[in-house]
Amino acid sequence: MANITKKVSWSSRGDESGGGERTPLLNGSEEVRYTRQLSGDGGMFHIGRLSTVDLEEDMTSDEDSVRGCPKEIPHNEKLLSLKYESLDYDNSENQLFLEEERRMSFLGFKCLEISRWVICGLIGFLTGLIACCIDIAVENLAGVKYFVVKQNIEKFTEVGGLSISLILWAVLNSAFVMVGAIIVAFFEPGAAGSGIPQIKCYLNGVKIPRVVRLKTLVVKVCGVICSVAGGLAVGKEGPMIHSGAVVAAGVSQGRSTSLKKDFKIFEYFRRDTEKRDFVSAGAAAGVSAAFGAPVGGVLFSLEEGASFWNQMLTWRIFFASMISTFTLNFFLSIYNKKPGDLSSPGLINFGRFESDSVAYNLYEIPLFIVMGAVGGLLGALFNILNYWLTIFRIRYVHRPCLQVMEAMLVAAVTATVSFAMIYFSNDCQPLGPDQSEDYPLQLFCADGEYNSMATAFFNTPERSVRSLFHNPPGSYNPLTLSLFTLTYFFLACWTYGLTVSAGVFIPSLLIGAAWGRLFGILLASITPNGSIWADPGKYALIGAAAQLGGIVRMTLSLTVIMVEATGNVTYGLPIMLVLLTAKVVGDYFVEGLYDIHIKLQSVPFLHLEAPATSHWLTAREVMGAPVTCFNRIEKVGTIVDVLSNTSTNHNGFPVVVPVAASDDMGKICGLILRSQLIVLLKHKVFVELARSRLTQRKLQLKDFRDAYPRFPPIQSIHVSQDERECMMDLTEFMNPTPYTVPQETSLPRVFKLFRALGLRHLVVVDSENR
Amino acid sequence: MANITKKVSWSSRGDESGGGERTPLLNGSEEVRYTRQLSGDGGMFHIGRLSTVDLEEDMTSDEDSVRGCPKEIPHNEKLLSLKYESLDYDNSENQLFLEEERRMSFLGFKCLEISRWVICGLIGFLTGLIACCIDIAVENLAGVKYFVVKQNIEKFTEVGGLSISLILWAVLNSAFVMVGAIIVAFFEPGAAGSGIPQIKCYLNGVKIPRVVRLKTLVVKVCGVICSVAGGLAVGKEGPMIHSGAVVAAGVSQGRSTSLKKDFKIFEYFRRDTEKRDFVSAGAAAGVSAAFGAPVGGVLFSLEEGASFWNQMLTWRIFFASMISTFTLNFFLSIYNKKPGDLSSPGLINFGRFESDSVAYNLYEIPLFIVMGAVGGLLGALFNILNYWLTIFRIRYVHRPCLQVMEAMLVAAVTATVSFAMIYFSNDCQPLGPDQSEDYPLQLFCADGEYNSMATAFFNTPERSVRSLFHNPPGSYNPLTLSLFTLTYFFLACWTYGLTVSAGVFIPSLLIGAAWGRLFGILLASITPNGSIWADPGKYALIGAAAQLGGIVRMTLSLTVIMVEATGNVTYGLPIMLVLLTAKVVGDYFVEGLYDIHIKLQSVPFLHLEAPATSHWLTAREVMGAPVTCFNRIEKVGTIVDVLSNTSTNHNGFPVVVPVAASDDMGKICGLILRSQLIVLLKHKVFVELARSRLTQRKLQLKDFRDAYPRFPPIQSIHVSQDERECMMDLTEFMNPTPYTVPQETSLPRVFKLFRALGLRHLVVVDSENR
Repeated sequence: MANITKKVSWSSRGDESGGGERTPLLNGSEEVRYTRQLSGDGGMFHIGRLSTVDLEEDMTSDEDSVRGCPKEIPHNEKLLSLKYESLDYDNSENQLFLEEERRMSFLGFKCLEISRWVICGLIGFLTGLIACCIDIAVENLAGVKYFVVKQNIEKFTEVGGLSISLILWAVLNSAFVMVGAIIVAFFEPGAAGSGIPQIKCYLNGVKIPRVVRLKTLVVKVCGVICSVAGGLAVGKEGPMIHSGAVVAAGVSQGRSTSLKKDFKIFEYFRRDTEKRDFVSAGAAAGVSAAFGAPVGGVLFSLEEGASFWNQMLTWRIFFASMISTFTLNFFLSIYNKKPGDLSSPGLINFGRFESDSVAYNLYEIPLFIVMGAVGGLLGALFNILNYWLTIFRIRYVHRPCLQVMEAMLVAAVTATVSFAMIYFSNDCQPLGPDQSEDYPLQLFCADGEYNSMATAFFNTPERSVRSLFHNPPGSYNPLTLSLFTLTYFFLACWTYGLTVSAGVFIPSLLIGAAWGRLFGILLASITPNGSIWADPGKYALIGAAAQLGGIVRMTLSLTVIMVEATGNVTYGLPIMLVLLTAKVVGDYFVEGLYDIHIKLQSVPFLHLEAPATSHWLTAREVMGAPVTCFNRIEKVGTIVDVLSNTSTNHNGFPVVVPVAASDDMGKICGLILRSQLIVLLKHKVFVELARSRLTQRKLQLKDFRDAYPRFPPIQSIHVSQDERECMMDLTEFMNPTPYTVPQETSLPRVFKLFRALGLRHLVVVDSENR
Repeated sequence: MANITKKVSWSSRGDESGGGERTPLLNGSEEVRYTRQLSGDGGMFHIGRLSTVDLEEDMTSDEDSVRGCPKEIPHNEKLLSLKYESLDYDNSENQLFLEEERRMSFLGFKCLEISRWVICGLIGFLTGLIACCIDIAVENLAGVKYFVVKQNIEKFTEVGGLSISLILWAVLNSAFVMVGAIIVAFFEPGAAGSGIPQIKCYLNGVKIPRVVRLKTLVVKVCGVICSVAGGLAVGKEGPMIHSGAVVAAGVSQGRSTSLKKDFKIFEYFRRDTEKRDFVSAGAAAGVSAAFGAPVGGVLFSLEEGASFWNQMLTWRIFFASMISTFTLNFFLSIYNKKPGDLSSPGLINFGRFESDSVAYNLYEIPLFIVMGAVGGLLGALFNILNYWLTIFRIRYVHRPCLQVMEAMLVAAVTATVSFAMIYFSNDCQPLGPDQSEDYPLQLFCADGEYNSMATAFFNTPERSVRSLFHNPPGSYNPLTLSLFTLTYFFLACWTYGLTVSAGVFIPSLLIGAAWGRLFGILLASITPNGSIWADPGKYALIGAAAQLGGIVRMTLSLTVIMVEATGNVTYGLPIMLVLLTAKVVGDYFVEGLYDIHIKLQSVPFLHLEAPATSHWLTAREVMGAPVTCFNRIEKVGTIVDVLSNTSTNHNGFPVVVPVAASDDMGKICGLILRSQLIVLLKHKVFVELARSRLTQRKLQLKDFRDAYPRFPPIQSIHVSQDERECMMDLTEFMNPTPYTVPQETSLPRVFKLFRALGLRHLVVVDSENR
C-alpha cells in the first residue's frame, strides 16, 4: 500500500532532471535513478517505489522522449517548496461528517444553498467596490500629478530650465512608488506582483501561506494605487484579481484571524472544499471588475482552477462576476455624475469598436496570424528577459531596503526616459476640436498643436491604450510609435517583478497596441490602395492581443476577455487566431510569464494533462514510499512521533486493519488527515480518557472548523509521557472510503482522477487491498 | 462484487415512486420496496442489493424528504427506455490499447492533436454553411409566399372576397408544412422537434439510436426549412444545434454508414470518448451559428454535456464555434452583397442595443425581477399544457398519417387565426420614411399607413422579434400586443411537439417580447413621468428573456447567449436576474420543457448533482444485482448465453480470478464490455483456434474500430455447438484497472465519480476486492 501525494508535483518540463537527487522529500535512495527518468518527462508525483520493480525496459523507451538540455534553476528550489501544501479539496467523509449531513434537513440544505448565493453576491459587491476605489484614487492622484508637472513644464518651456520639470516629475514618481514599495516590502511581501501566479496556484490546489489574508488585501490595494499613480509601467488589473480572491476567502469564512473577529456565520464553509469554490468566484469577480468581462471572469476561473465542472458553482461564479461589474459600473457612473449610464463596466475600457468602421476582410486573416507570431516572439523575449532579471533579483536584491530602492530607481528612470522621449520628439499634431487629450502637452509645438509622444507617455497607461486604439489615423507618426514600443518594452520588462503591487496586462496591451498601430501604418503606406487599411486602430487591437497572448499565454479566457472588452463579437475569430498563434510560437521558446514566476517561487503545480507519452507508467511506479500507516486504534505516542518526524511530512495517512496472515501490511480501511490528527491530539480524544470521563462532550465537526485554517503545528501540542501510552480510536474521524486505484493503473488514469476530482491523496492498493 | 450501471437513471423527481415496481430491469424482488424509497428522492442508479441490509432506520429518515403527489406517466416508460444505452465514455485501457499508445511516438500524438483541430475547424465550417443554407432558403421561400399572399390581399381588399386570400394563405402554409411533416414522419422520426433534448441526452452519455445519422441531418434541414417557411410558430435555431452535432459525429468518424463510404481517415477517433467530444463541439458550433454567440455555444456544451472540464477540449469547442459563426457571417455578407460586412453573426439577430438609448436604472431591477417571475409562471403554464398535449399525442396520434394531418391542421389554423387577427385589428400606424417593414399590409388602413398587427403575424418570427425590440415607441398599441401574446402563446404551445423539425426558442422570445413590450407601455402610461420608461424595447428584451427562461430553464448559457445576441454587456445583470427568477419560479411548478420531453421519451438521464439528502446511501445499496462475472478464461458457451439473455442486459462485465478459499465470488481483475465480447466472438478468438492456427493474425484495435459504432447484436453471431465448448482468453482485451469503489462509499461520492469522469461502469468491491 502506498500513498501518492500531490505535494511535489513540478511544473517544469525536464528541468528537474538534474536536480532530482537533492530533494529531501524523496524517502529512500534506490529510486533516485528512476526519479530522474520520470521527472525528466514532466514528472508530477511524489515519486518512489515500495518494492523493486524492473523498470529497465520502460526506461529505454522513455529515454527518447526526455527533452534535452535541462535548464537548472540556480537556487535550491527543493527546499523552498516545502513551504507549500496542497489544499484538501476532497471532503473527508468521516462518520462525523456523515452524521451531520444526515441531521441536516432538506430545509437546511436550501438555507446553505441560499447563503452560498448571498456570499457570492457579497463577494461581487465588495470586489466591485474595491475596484471602484482603486480607480477613483488612481485617477485623482495621477490627475493631480500630471496637472502639477504640466503646469511646471509650461512654465519652464519658455524660460528654459526644463531639467527642473524633469526632476519634479521624477521625484513625484519616486515618492509614490516609495510608499507603495515600502508597504509591500516591509509589511506584506505576499502582496508583490500581480498576484495572478499565486491565485493560479491556489486554485490549482496549492496552499500558499498568507495569500488570502486581509492584510495582503489592504497592502495590495494601497500598493497598486501608489505604483500606478507613480507612473510605473504597470496596470491595476492583475492585483484586482488577487483582491477579489482575498475578499472571497474573507467573506466566506465569516471571520478574520488578522482582526481577531469571528462573526459566527458561515461556519459550515470552513473547509478547503468550500473555500476554494468561493475563491474561484472571487477571482472571477476580480477579472470581471478589471475588464468588464463577466463571462471572461468565469472562464478564467475555470481555466485556471476548477478542474471539476460543477454547474451550480459556475452559476454562482457567474453571479459574483455580474454583481461585481455592475457595482463598479454603478458607482463609477455616480462618480462621473451620470448615474444610470452604465457604460464603463471595467477598470480598463477599450472603448467601443463599431463593426462598420473597423470591419476586417478574409484576406487580412493571414496578416493577423503573422502579427500573432510576432507577438509570440516578442512575448517570449519579454519572458526570457524577465526570467533572467528575476533570478538576478532573487540572488542579489532580497533585502527589503534594496527592493524599495530598486523600485524608486525604476520610477525615476521611467520618468527620465519618458521626459527625454517627449523632449526629443518632434511629432506635433494639431489639437482637434473635441479635445480628446486629457493632458495635451504643447512643449515645442506650435500653438494649437500638441506633442503626440506625450499622449503615449504623459498619461495613465489605460488612457494611452485607448488613444492608440481609437485616435484617428495620423495621430501618431511611425517614428514615435517605434521609439515608444522599444522603450516601453524594456521599462515594462524591468518593472514586472519589482516589489510593488502591479499587473502586467496593461503594459503588454500598450506595447502591443503601439507596434500593432505601427504595423497598420506601415501596411497602409506600402500598399498602393491604402484606403482599406485605413484604420490603424484595428491593428493596434490585434497587436495588443498578440503581445498579451505572447506574454501570459492564456488563450480561451483571454479571447473572451478581449471580446467582451471590445464589445464586438465579430472580432472574436481574429483575436482567437492571434492568441493561438502567439501561444504556439511563444511556447516553442519559453513558458508563460506566470508559469515562470510560479516555478521561480518553487510552487508545485499540477498541469492540465498528463504527458502524452506516459501511458506506460503505472500508479505503483509513481507512488510515494515508504508509506506510514496507522492502525484503527493507535497509540498516541506513535502518532505524535510520526507527525513530528519531518522527513515523513505526508498529510494523509492510510488507516489499516492488520491481517493475521500477512506479514507487514494491513488491509486499508480509511484515510485520515494530518490536520484531523492534530485536532484530535489537541482535544485529547483518547480511549482511556473517554472511559474515565463519561460526561466528556463528544468532539464535533465544529471543533475541526474552529481550528481551520491555521492548524497548530505538532510541536505546539504538549503530550505528556502518560498520555503517550494512551490509545486513540480513529474510526470515527477517518474517511472510510478514500478513492483508491489498483497499482497497475496507468499514469494518465491516475492523473485524470487527480484533476477531475481535485484530489490530494490517492491510495494505491494491490489486489488484496493493501 | 456488484456492478452499478448508469443505465436506469431516471430524470424525474418523485415520479417513479409509483412505477418502480413494474420495471423489468430490477433483478430480484425483495428490493422493490427499497427502490420506491430511493427513487422517490431522485433515484438514479440501477437499484438493487446483493445481500440483505437493514435499511429500516434509514428509510424513516428519508421518508420526510420524499416529495408528495407523484404523477404517473401513462405509457409504460420502463419498456421504452430499454432502447437507450449509455456511451462508453471511459477509455477501456486494455492491453491492446496500451500497446498502441506505447507504439505511438511523440510526433504521432502531435499529429492526432492537429487532426483534432482540423476536424473542429471542419465541423464549424460545415455547420456555418448549413446554417447559411437554411437561412437563405427560408428567407426566399417565405419571401415568395408573403409576396404572393400580399398581392392577393391587396387585390381583394378593395373588391371584397378576402376569404380567398385566407384560403390561399392557409393552403400555402399547409403545403409547406405537409412536405416537412411527411419527410419527418415517414423517413426519419428522429428528426422531429428541436433535437435539443436528444443532444442533451447524448452529451449526458446516453446513446440514442439514429440521433447522429446523416439521414437525420438531411431530413432535419429540409424539415426546418419547410416548417419555418410554412408559417408555423417555430424557430430554426434548435434544429441548428442538432445539425451541428450530426455534422460533428459524421466528420469525426471519417465515414458514413448511411452512404456506405469509409474515407479511411480519423480511425483513431472511432470510439465513444472521442466522438462525444466532437459532438460537444458540433453542438456548440450549432448554437454559435444560431445566435451568433460562440461563447454561449461553448457554455451550452459544457452546461449540457461535458461534466469533466478538459481545457484542450474546451479550446477546440471554442474554435469550432468561432469558425461556425464566422462562416455564417461571411457567406451571409456575400449573399447580402456586402462582402466583408460581418454584422450578422447568427441566424437570429437581435439588432444592436445601444447602451445610451436603453440604459436602465437601479430601481428598475425589482421590476425586472417581477417580469422574471411572470415569465416563470407563463413558462410553467406553457410546459404543463405542452406536457398534456404530448401525452395526448403519444396516446392517440402515433401513426405517421395522423401526425402529418395534425401538422397540416396546425398550419392552416395558424394562418386562419393570423388572418382573423389582422382582419379585425384596427391598429393602423403611419408608414415611416425609412420603410422598416418588409411586408407592410395596408388592408383597411388609410393610405400611407399599415396594419401593425400584420407586422407581428405577417412576417417570419425572427423579423417580428426584431421589430418588437427595436420599433420606436408607439408602433404597437396595447390591445394588439395582448391579443398577439394570447394567440401566439397557444399556437406555439400547440406547435411544439408536432412531427416537424422545429425549435421553441424563437416562439418563446416572440411571446415574451410581446408581453414585455406591453408591460413597458403600461408602465409608461400609469406613471406620471413617463419619459424614463420611454423605450418599450428594453422591456421587450427582458420579457423575451423571462419567457424563454421560464420555458427552457437554462440559466448560464442562456444569459451568455442573450448577452452576445444583444451585443451589450451591461444587460448581463438584468438578464441574469430575470433568468434566475424565471427558473426558480418555474421549477417550483414543473420542469423545463426539454426535461419534460426527455422524460416523455423515457430516456435515462443523469442529473447534475446528487440529491442533497442522500449522504446516508452507500454504493452497496444502489448497485445493480445480481452481477454477472466472467472468469479470466471463460467458456464461449457461457459468454454467448449471458450475452443472449435479455434479462441481464448489462454492458460491462467484471472479470474475476477465482479464489480458492471463498465460496462464490472471485477477486476482481478487470472489466470487459459487451461490445468487445461481441467483436471477440465474431472473430472467433478462441484459445483452441489460436493453438491450431499459429499464423492467425492477432486481433487489433482496428477490428474494434471497424465495428464501431454499430456492433452487431448477439443474435446475429452464429456459434456452433463445437465452438461453444471452446475457451476464450479475455486477459488481453479486458480493462485491467476499472474504477472501483468500496461498498461503503456514500452516494454523493459515487455520483461525483460518475459525473466527473463520465463513467458508465463502476465496480463496487468489498474489502477483499470481490
